[in-house]
Amino acid sequence: MSVAMNKDELSEYLAQVFPQVHKDFVVEELTEDSITMRLVVEERHLRPGGTVSGPSMFGLADVCVYAMILSRKGRQSLAVTTSSSMDFLRKPEGAADMIAQCRLLKLGRSLAVGDVLIFSEGADSPVARASMTYSLPPAGSAAAAFG
Amino acid sequence: MSVAMNKDELSEYLAQVFPQVHKDFVVEELTEDSITMRLVVEERHLRPGGTVSGPSMFGLADVCVYAMILSRKGRQSLAVTTSSSMDFLRKPEGAADMIAQCRLLKLGRSLAVGDVLIFSEGADSPVARASMTYSLPPAGSAAAAFG
Amino acid sequence: MSVAMNKDELSEYLAQVFPQVHKDFVVEELTEDSITMRLVVEERHLRPGGTVSGPSMFGLADVCVYAMILSRKGRQSLAVTTSSSMDFLRKPEGAADMIAQCRLLKLGRSLAVGDVLIFSEGADSPVARASMTYSLPPAGSAAAAFG
Amino acid sequence: MSVAMNKDELSEYLAQVFPQVHKDFVVEELTEDSITMRLVVEERHLRPGGTVSGPSMFGLADVCVYAMILSRKGRQSLAVTTSSSMDFLRKPEGAADMIAQCRLLKLGRSLAVGDVLIFSEGADSPVARASMTYSLPPAGSAAAAFG
Repeated sequence: MSVAMNKDELSEYLAQVFPQVHKDFVVEELTEDSITMRLVVEERHLRPGGTVSGPSMFGLADVCVYAMILSRKGRQSLAVTTSSSMDFLRKPEGAADMIAQCRLLKLGRSLAVGDVLIFSEGADSPVARASMTYSLPPAGSAAAAFG
Repeated sequence: MSVAMNKDELSEYLAQVFPQVHKDFVVEELTEDSITMRLVVEERHLRPGGTVSGPSMFGLADVCVYAMILSRKGRQSLAVTTSSSMDFLRKPEGAADMIAQCRLLKLGRSLAVGDVLIFSEGADSPVARASMTYSLPPAGSAAAAFG
Repeated sequence: MSVAMNKDELSEYLAQVFPQVHKDFVVEELTEDSITMRLVVEERHLRPGGTVSGPSMFGLADVCVYAMILSRKGRQSLAVTTSSSMDFLRKPEGAADMIAQCRLLKLGRSLAVGDVLIFSEGADSPVARASMTYSLPPAGSAAAAFG
Repeated sequence: MSVAMNKDELSEYLAQVFPQVHKDFVVEELTEDSITMRLVVEERHLRPGGTVSGPSMFGLADVCVYAMILSRKGRQSLAVTTSSSMDFLRKPEGAADMIAQCRLLKLGRSLAVGDVLIFSEGADSPVARASMTYSLPPAGSAAAAFG
């Protein structure tokens, strides 16, 4: 195994490709097969009652697996989400950032799969669990990655 | 079967409880066991390349099943998403609104399940498929709905 | 669209490739983008309490989507399940066969997706919902289909 | 936290309630929030090509989460699977037993969630990933657990 981008290179690249949302997400730690990312929770991520919205947690899980693929395959790589599943386990703390711990379970020729546990920062029990599958089109392919 | 809120009552109620996002979502059609909703696609729903973001489609599917539960159980009802799965099938058209067709597959004592097909408006083939499970705590329960 | 195998050809081919289990499954109806299949429920499909087991329903959903792919791509086609999700909605009737109605939502170059509703025969409300993603390796490929 | 059944009590109880299949499954290790189980692979678990079938792996993941709930809630407890998702990552070794490592992510009042990694014995990379949600009806309830 080898890494195509380290933590700083990955952070910089995410800022380029997601100019609208990159400030929401911070890469906390990166290894060959895991990543920890933070969602900096702002008013716009909240739902009435002060909990973090489902779409915000979906976006966090999704960006984790995408970032893992980039860090291994490099910045020219194409990847699109094809399947996902999430379980919402507990009420998140609206006042706390969310911390996502992602494992890369598979990085194949055409598919990558990661799973994610999401925590309210400082809490021991996970708020949500997710798994995400990405389709990886051949490099240089003009084809959409949707298979 | 009976309906607790009709289309107009439901639309008005969603505007009250989701002040931040209700303008994104329009109830197009409502029956006892199905709903059609529109996501009015704006710049903020898009990703680079002009496609609608995954979290935006997740949010659309989620609000469909929630709206179905409200329309049947009434406005005082509590419901929280506990499980979800989505498949992303084709590239959405960034310039088109998204139309979600939801079926209520189960409305039980403590769980409700719906599935959703999402289309770019005017297209024949679905862009995404979703299923969502909601936990329904007893009326008057102070308990969180997370089970 | 075109069909590579009709209902009789498909039934015959399933009997060849699944000698151990093909008598469990009967193709009831086949169109270009849907299939109805029957699980002939026997003692070995049941769990204590007389309900049909989860693995039996998983197998039924899985074979539906596989059969749809075969009917369109032909008998030489390779396909392996990569992702699945199921919701179990109601207690099945142990004494009744199970009827699965499957829609082919996508048949792409490298991925196929179908969803399935499963009923106890004669009942109006579904017992389970499933969606299945298959990876389709290139024809003639020696590569495993796991991506 | 406390455990209602230890490994030996759990194994004995599974043999009572699943007389048809209990010999397939062996409890290898049990803690308060994790379990390791073995699927003793026999001819009937295999598919043409010598790989372990999808339904066999689904059954293994399902029994893991069920056994975790039993070990914590005790033998009188009711629990039925309501949602599941699985990703199939690699071709299993048909000649090897399968080892499932399960974490109990939530054990609530009415819902329990576990996730599972499945390995061919002796291999480093997982063959499949699963998550399972169980509905837990109140003790003494005559109601079905399907919510």
